[in-house]
Amino acid sequence: MPPRRCTAAYSAVAQMGSNTSESDAEELVMRCLSCEEEYDVDDSGTCRECYQEANEAEEELRHEIEELKSKVSFLTLPSPNLNASTADVVLVPVDDSDDAPIPAHKHLLVSRSPVFRAMLKNDMTERRSGTIKISDVSYDTLHAFVNYLYTAEASLDNELACNLLVLGEKYQVKHLKTYCEKYLIAKMNWDKAISNYAFAYQYNCKQLQSVSLAVILDHMDSLTQNECYAELVDTNPRLVVEIYETYIGRLLNTAGAF
Amino acid sequence: MPPRRCTAAYSAVAQMGSNTSESDAEELVMRCLSCEEEYDVDDSGTCRECYQEANEAEEELRHEIEELKSKVSFLTLPSPNLNASTADVVLVPVDDSDDAPIPAHKHLLVSRSPVFRAMLKNDMTERRSGTIKISDVSYDTLHAFVNYLYTAEASLDNELACNLLVLGEKYQVKHLKTYCEKYLIAKMNWDKAISNYAFAYQYNCKQLQSVSLAVILDHMDSLTQNECYAELVDTNPRLVVEIYETYIGRLLNTAGAF
Repeated sequence: MPPRRCTAAYSAVAQMGSNTSESDAEELVMRCLSCEEEYDVDDSGTCRECYQEANEAEEELRHEIEELKSKVSFLTLPSPNLNASTADVVLVPVDDSDDAPIPAHKHLLVSRSPVFRAMLKNDMTERRSGTIKISDVSYDTLHAFVNYLYTAEASLDNELACNLLVLGEKYQVKHLKTYCEKYLIAKMNWDKAISNYAFAYQYNCKQLQSVSLAVILDHMDSLTQNECYAELVDTNPRLVVEIYETYIGRLLNTAGAF
Repeated sequence: MPPRRCTAAYSAVAQMGSNTSESDAEELVMRCLSCEEEYDVDDSGTCRECYQEANEAEEELRHEIEELKSKVSFLTLPSPNLNASTADVVLVPVDDSDDAPIPAHKHLLVSRSPVFRAMLKNDMTERRSGTIKISDVSYDTLHAFVNYLYTAEASLDNELACNLLVLGEKYQVKHLKTYCEKYLIAKMNWDKAISNYAFAYQYNCKQLQSVSLAVILDHMDSLTQNECYAELVDTNPRLVVEIYETYIGRLLNTAGAF
């Protein structure tokens, strides 16, 4: 498109021949179509056409979001307890077996987790007995886990997010694992950084690990005072070495830049 | 925010004191941050700040869409045939019963349709027999219907969209009904307008009915030549009267406007 002439400028120029005043120039102050504030040429953003196209594009995106939300609510299944009458399998926490078993549906477990698929498709104990025993998990965590498989929702706090992430890793429910990892990243701070770093390493959460490491590297001056530091040195000194190696590597790079 | 002065205009004004030329004015031609084309004051859209905010907002919307898509794919269940081994109910088309029954899961049917819920929760024949007989439906339509309850997807053509909409209405699967209605609206044209209008009336599709009527009112000159017209006069003359009443009503309003 060839450059267009600034007609408003011309009209100002015409009047300036006789008398140059601020009021002429102020004719060139523009009003933003979005915030409706005035702005000058130095603060100009887009042309009118692009503004209108952007508005239409945003409208389409919002429409797509509405469609997807209604699809999610259609596909969401009610919590397993509400389906107890049609359940064909139960889950039991080995260490917390006083509570009632949690009812579920084989075809749903199979579709959500490759591990359950292997258990229930092949002729294993779980398939014959209709009972799946889950070790190292509390009743509440297991209930939240099964509920997530039906609804893709969970009311997380830091502890539940960690517990569900562990189950997500163990039963290869990737969507749940990502859901918990995002929660832990959103709640990250210096107090949690070292424990999150070790946790992320243990359960193979690349993104959580790199975010935790970034927070740690921003607090190297108080690293050894962090209450989790001594514990990490005992339990996993190689991870501590990795922190120092990354820090030193970065120092040398920065020094090299001067 | 108080109006800001147009500094670029001032710089032009300063030079114009000595010699007013087009080149001074051209300094005021701006470049759009979006399409990167030049534009003048008359075509100005937004200020820089609003352009940047709009970009961030669009980024967030796209991110939300990605999250929802991954949630949809997590919640989608595999087609019932792949779950035959865990199915606890079968659906059979009464008029097309040579084909194999279609396996399904009670808890899924119950969660998707209030009609199936009533059948399967109460002690009705279907619950005891584990067989649901569906009348006035072909095997292929019923298979597509059951598949939709698991996946929220169907490969529609005009005929299937109508057949599934009928089942959506009969079994109160609102999401399916809307899905088919949108398809029929998207494919609307003058040839289909009258049959769609009658169909929408019969199955209570408000939006499809008003879109069909709008298309009909745009073709009043050839209404009686449309091959579906005579049929509609025979089968549902009241609907034809409604077309004429709306048309005349609109004519009188327009006339009143002059």
